[in-house]
Amino acid sequence: MTDKMIIGLDRAAEIISSRDNILILTHANPDGDTLGSAAALSLALGQLGKRSRIENSDEIPHKYDYLFTNTQKELFAPEFIMSVDVADKKLLGSLEEKYDGKIGLSIDHHGSNRLFAYETCVDPGSSSTAELILELIKLLGVTVTQGIANAIYTGLATDTGCFRFMNTTANTHIAAAQMMAAGADCAMINKLMFETKSFSYMKLEKRGLEGLTLHFGGRVAVISLTGEDFRISGASQQDCDAICGIPRQVEGVDIGVTMREKEPGLYKISVRTNGGYDASAICQALGGGGHKGAAGCEVRGTLEDAKKAVLDAAGKYLDTVKD
Amino acid sequence: MTDKMIIGLDRAAEIISSRDNILILTHANPDGDTLGSAAALSLALGQLGKRSRIENSDEIPHKYDYLFTNTQKELFAPEFIMSVDVADKKLLGSLEEKYDGKIGLSIDHHGSNRLFAYETCVDPGSSSTAELILELIKLLGVTVTQGIANAIYTGLATDTGCFRFMNTTANTHIAAAQMMAAGADCAMINKLMFETKSFSYMKLEKRGLEGLTLHFGGRVAVISLTGEDFRISGASQQDCDAICGIPRQVEGVDIGVTMREKEPGLYKISVRTNGGYDASAICQALGGGGHKGAAGCEVRGTLEDAKKAVLDAAGKYLDTVKD
Repeated sequence: MTDKMIIGLDRAAEIISSRDNILILTHANPDGDTLGSAAALSLALGQLGKRSRIENSDEIPHKYDYLFTNTQKELFAPEFIMSVDVADKKLLGSLEEKYDGKIGLSIDHHGSNRLFAYETCVDPGSSSTAELILELIKLLGVTVTQGIANAIYTGLATDTGCFRFMNTTANTHIAAAQMMAAGADCAMINKLMFETKSFSYMKLEKRGLEGLTLHFGGRVAVISLTGEDFRISGASQQDCDAICGIPRQVEGVDIGVTMREKEPGLYKISVRTNGGYDASAICQALGGGGHKGAAGCEVRGTLEDAKKAVLDAAGKYLDTVKD
Repeated sequence: MTDKMIIGLDRAAEIISSRDNILILTHANPDGDTLGSAAALSLALGQLGKRSRIENSDEIPHKYDYLFTNTQKELFAPEFIMSVDVADKKLLGSLEEKYDGKIGLSIDHHGSNRLFAYETCVDPGSSSTAELILELIKLLGVTVTQGIANAIYTGLATDTGCFRFMNTTANTHIAAAQMMAAGADCAMINKLMFETKSFSYMKLEKRGLEGLTLHFGGRVAVISLTGEDFRISGASQQDCDAICGIPRQVEGVDIGVTMREKEPGLYKISVRTNGGYDASAICQALGGGGHKGAAGCEVRGTLEDAKKAVLDAAGKYLDTVKD
């Protein structure tokens, strides 16, 4: 790792200015931040007369189509490869093998960045990679067009739960204000990102709420979804991501648990906490890991087995944090 | 109405500067904007050495307690009465009779303001009354303390659905950034306002989702809640307010309808639309009214009768807007 360097945005702008035919990689299962960052950067490079292309390991959900209306799509042999919002080369998904060791520049906001690129510009104080890309674009002397504003706003809004999560800072709001002033269609983006749910998702949520249970005097809430719940609702595993936020929203709950049957007899457990309780401590006890506010693990067995294992781990954790 | 005047913020600041012993009225069923505006103004007046008090017609929900930690609560005979976020004297609730004709100054952001006060400062381009109060406070030369920042942020965030609704402007984000920089505890406020739901609400939502139906090829979604749903879940009519936003979130839906049994045989209908469809046109056909994006009416009869009436009105409306 001796040849890996952590750099600032000034240096990142210098590198990009000196390069052309740039390939931009996003992380697997792409979200609004990695896609918005890539689209904004691609549009900015176009304005500088540089050729660029975005590559992903997975199909991009159609709700993000508006990001790519005017991005460059021409194929070319890349002379320089960079990644946006990718904390670990493993997160490149199927592109890891192809590009491992070839990534010149990584721009990211995850404190957990594994420094897999030759040069890495990482700011964990930034709400999103898009917030960093906006600063970079300004350093490059690019005008923020409506397309760029839409892309940056998408990253800001999606990574902060529309300015609701704790990673939102004053600078995030200032960036959002600048994007609105530059013509971002925030009404359209907010509707698409936050106010649109599939009918099958609604059916899955209903089934989840049906089985919502409270434990430990209401401090732990659990939603469990079996393979049958997914089959009957027609919802996808991805639909479940939004459900993981529900249990911890119940008044008085410190620890919210969502259990989904990933394959027969294998439950994926997602833990979300409030008020500083440590989700990763609970998941580590079951062989998983994650962050303080959000962590995960997998448990084999029946729904009853898995639920018992999680509640045991949660109970033991709550014992350790007693005043 | 000849003695009623519309004034700017400069004049509003002049009036307040020249007065003392000020009573601040909020609207009935107080929300985050009317309460945040009142609390911020009361704290600002305290900083100017002026006595003030806030009065409401209804009990304030406990989740807003933090707004009033340091506001003045001393009783006194008011020398000047003003209102914040009140569009019509009727919205004063039980205080209307007591204060009708005595309100010297109204500060508001509703274009529908009925000019019931002697002088009215109204800006429909402002996301919230709190956004206006912030400008007013600056004109008064008051320092934005943490308490004021919490109060203003509460108004901004609650009236915009946490910066998600179309009334959010670049200036709203700038105001939010300033409040964060002034020490607003946005994590606490966002958790309380947007991420906390009662268990009984969850049960009501589950019952609502159970009965979610689609009509007119998926363009109209309906959720209906009977008196039994409220009784079994233990939820209140107020809990239902959050459910009204759900039907129009279903992918492909233009018109979302929520029906709740307000009393036996009387259904309150809430219509929410996407993409410029006119909710008020549908509700007017049933004797109600409202705005383009959100309107309401009441229908007598069984659930089946009421649902048929609403769907008939929606169908007729959709016929009129056919290309």
